[in-house]
Amino acid sequence: MNKKTDVLVIGGGPAGMISAITAKRYYPEKNVLLIKSIGNGCIPCGIPYMFASLKDPDENKIGNESLEKSDVAVEVDEVVSIDRTQKQVITKKGDSYSYEKLILAVGSSPMKLPIPGIGMKGVHRIVKDTNYLKKVIEQVRLSKNVLVLGGGFIGVEFADELSKISGINISLAEVLPRLLMNSFDSDFSSMAEEKLKSQGVRLLTNTRIEEIIGNGKVEKVRLSNGTTIDADNIILGIGSIPDTKLAVNAGLDLNRINSIWVDEYMRTSDPDIFAIGDCAGKTDFFTRKAVPVMLASTATSEARIAGANLYRLRVVRENRGTISIYSTYINGLVLGSAGLTESTSKKEGFETVVGSCRGFDKHPATLPGTNSTHVKLIFSRKSGTLMGGQVSGGFPCGAMINLIGIAIQQRMSVTELETLQVATHPYLTSSPTVYPIVIAAQNAANKI
Amino acid sequence: MNKKTDVLVIGGGPAGMISAITAKRYYPEKNVLLIKSIGNGCIPCGIPYMFASLKDPDENKIGNESLEKSDVAVEVDEVVSIDRTQKQVITKKGDSYSYEKLILAVGSSPMKLPIPGIGMKGVHRIVKDTNYLKKVIEQVRLSKNVLVLGGGFIGVEFADELSKISGINISLAEVLPRLLMNSFDSDFSSMAEEKLKSQGVRLLTNTRIEEIIGNGKVEKVRLSNGTTIDADNIILGIGSIPDTKLAVNAGLDLNRINSIWVDEYMRTSDPDIFAIGDCAGKTDFFTRKAVPVMLASTATSEARIAGANLYRLRVVRENRGTISIYSTYINGLVLGSAGLTESTSKKEGFETVVGSCRGFDKHPATLPGTNSTHVKLIFSRKSGTLMGGQVSGGFPCGAMINLIGIAIQQRMSVTELETLQVATHPYLTSSPTVYPIVIAAQNAANKI
Repeated sequence: MNKKTDVLVIGGGPAGMISAITAKRYYPEKNVLLIKSIGNGCIPCGIPYMFASLKDPDENKIGNESLEKSDVAVEVDEVVSIDRTQKQVITKKGDSYSYEKLILAVGSSPMKLPIPGIGMKGVHRIVKDTNYLKKVIEQVRLSKNVLVLGGGFIGVEFADELSKISGINISLAEVLPRLLMNSFDSDFSSMAEEKLKSQGVRLLTNTRIEEIIGNGKVEKVRLSNGTTIDADNIILGIGSIPDTKLAVNAGLDLNRINSIWVDEYMRTSDPDIFAIGDCAGKTDFFTRKAVPVMLASTATSEARIAGANLYRLRVVRENRGTISIYSTYINGLVLGSAGLTESTSKKEGFETVVGSCRGFDKHPATLPGTNSTHVKLIFSRKSGTLMGGQVSGGFPCGAMINLIGIAIQQRMSVTELETLQVATHPYLTSSPTVYPIVIAAQNAANKI
Repeated sequence: MNKKTDVLVIGGGPAGMISAITAKRYYPEKNVLLIKSIGNGCIPCGIPYMFASLKDPDENKIGNESLEKSDVAVEVDEVVSIDRTQKQVITKKGDSYSYEKLILAVGSSPMKLPIPGIGMKGVHRIVKDTNYLKKVIEQVRLSKNVLVLGGGFIGVEFADELSKISGINISLAEVLPRLLMNSFDSDFSSMAEEKLKSQGVRLLTNTRIEEIIGNGKVEKVRLSNGTTIDADNIILGIGSIPDTKLAVNAGLDLNRINSIWVDEYMRTSDPDIFAIGDCAGKTDFFTRKAVPVMLASTATSEARIAGANLYRLRVVRENRGTISIYSTYINGLVLGSAGLTESTSKKEGFETVVGSCRGFDKHPATLPGTNSTHVKLIFSRKSGTLMGGQVSGGFPCGAMINLIGIAIQQRMSVTELETLQVATHPYLTSSPTVYPIVIAAQNAANKI
């Protein structure tokens, strides 16, 4: 059957949803249809917490309410090809949908690791499908020995979350020498390592998985250090690669690291096709290199830009580059990172100066519930421009990293940050005389 | 005895301390001396919490450690006059100190209310002196009926704090029709009112105190509504007025609302004398009017500007105006305000558009410890520039108001905020699709 729409969005994750809603807001006279292949999707960053923190995994579901409220039509089906000449897509169910403007928000899939035995039962990829995950949760909860593979955010959050289930021995394996290495310098990543260790997680950094051993179902894992450990379930918290098959088959350009090439308005090499989220190329805010950042928050920002620019370009709504802004939570410890780390900025050839401040999130620090806070800011030495920041501490750090994120996006200088006006309150912040972001900036300024 | 210094700071509060430390940092070759009249001062915003939250009021003391570490000399004495021709000050102890550069950080004092009986025992002004406050705390803790006078931040925080002491009936009287009226619109101030009522605080808005009745010590209070209430202690949480006596006697100019006139570098009408903090004039960031904002955080920002500009002007370090940024905490409820409120911006003649968002500070909202969050943003209708914001919710709002504060200071537009890149995490923020600051901006954009 051939159906007709004006704006067609492929993908039901945060990027797809927000782009469809934004399109309808800017172009209310247009019909907007969203096609998604997973009927029962879930919020990506909430997946680890479906295993223990949430009473019911369904609490993390992505519903259709916000789409319906915005008058966006929804189909559950899989698009198998794009016909750019006819301006239509073909689906698995055999339907075709014609479009004026097409938005690819098709996401990413876990990368395939060439480890012998990786196809065995008990080895779980993390797919954003509630029904699939429920089965994984069932098995993992009955587990005795779980190995989490990958020391990035997903792996770290899984290790933390699983330690809340009693009776499971957890190991976390990472090829690199430290956890969260791409987003944090060692003074911050070591806090994550200490925290997980204190919860009984066995950390295996600098460690590669050589072989998964078992009789159809995983039983043991042989490591690069020669030892073998027991594991009845393995969670692959490894990186993802952009889903570009549809785009490639349709003849769209890829960027230098094989994401879909897009311009600042999120247009692909076909001006009627936009790409956003994990499948779309990202340019780092400072290095201007293509980077493989995959974040729901970045995706929604891109979705708002694409949705607005579909039929008419709005210069103020352009993508100025990705700042790689993250926060995570490990059993009471909040870690946040935005922009470049000190080590990455050095590696990329920036001449930097670093300021830091250790303080508390209430004042005086004897108030109940006080956490220590650590802020580190990385500035360009010559211009004094803020290029990156990291924070650790209690809950307020979840918002503090966004404060640093705004300052980066606004290209604020060390002097502007040093004389920032902030609200302070005994129960809510450190004292105004030692507000950590201001003091870290001052500390950097002293070195310039 | 005549002593000599290069930089002389008068005042031991946050402004004085930070200006002295900054002066020493920028001009290490100069001698810096700070003279303060109260030897045992305390952190201003922590004063309410000395009454119950802190085990020992001394925990809120301001020590001399940070001054000593920065090689700033300290004298406890009171400056009684400034001789600008001789470039020296005279103290109560009879000493004189000559200076090259003088910084006035002399603060403010509670305004005097013309209420009959206000001089009685049991009526307490809030003075930043630990020894004095300890005596007040002793009396108030044994109190049966306390009346807090003033529904601004100090009054509200005192009412909240005293409700933690069992056996005290608390009344809060405010002349205006609502609490926190200068900093919040009614949708936010009503939350503070509900919270205090739920703690058993009797709210007397639209109420003036006509007479304090007692026999040398306060027993009752006659109100403007004709009733009389019992009160054995009264706390004056009322406004303060700048201490300008020294400045006036030295012939320095005042601004239109009788604060010490200063320029953007914090210089008074005498280029060798700077004024900062509560005693110094403030210009509103948007209205450009003189405003009576008295905040330790504003004071420290001014102190950093003054300290840097003492001998050589640094154009990047200038005061671009005060954004009136506040946060407060009432028994689990955090309220924050920055810039202009909707009602003030209308009164001042700005054409505005308002966006708001109600959400949660975790996602999904079924995660333990989730609080609801309310964000309201006020934009200039024509330019789309952010002019003010208010937040309510849990602890993260203490940092979120500073995020809004940065956006105001950077004159960010509704579009920049709508496409902001933020870090989101299930335990730390709302979902990326509905981050409240982004959605409030979007809500405003829809109306433009």
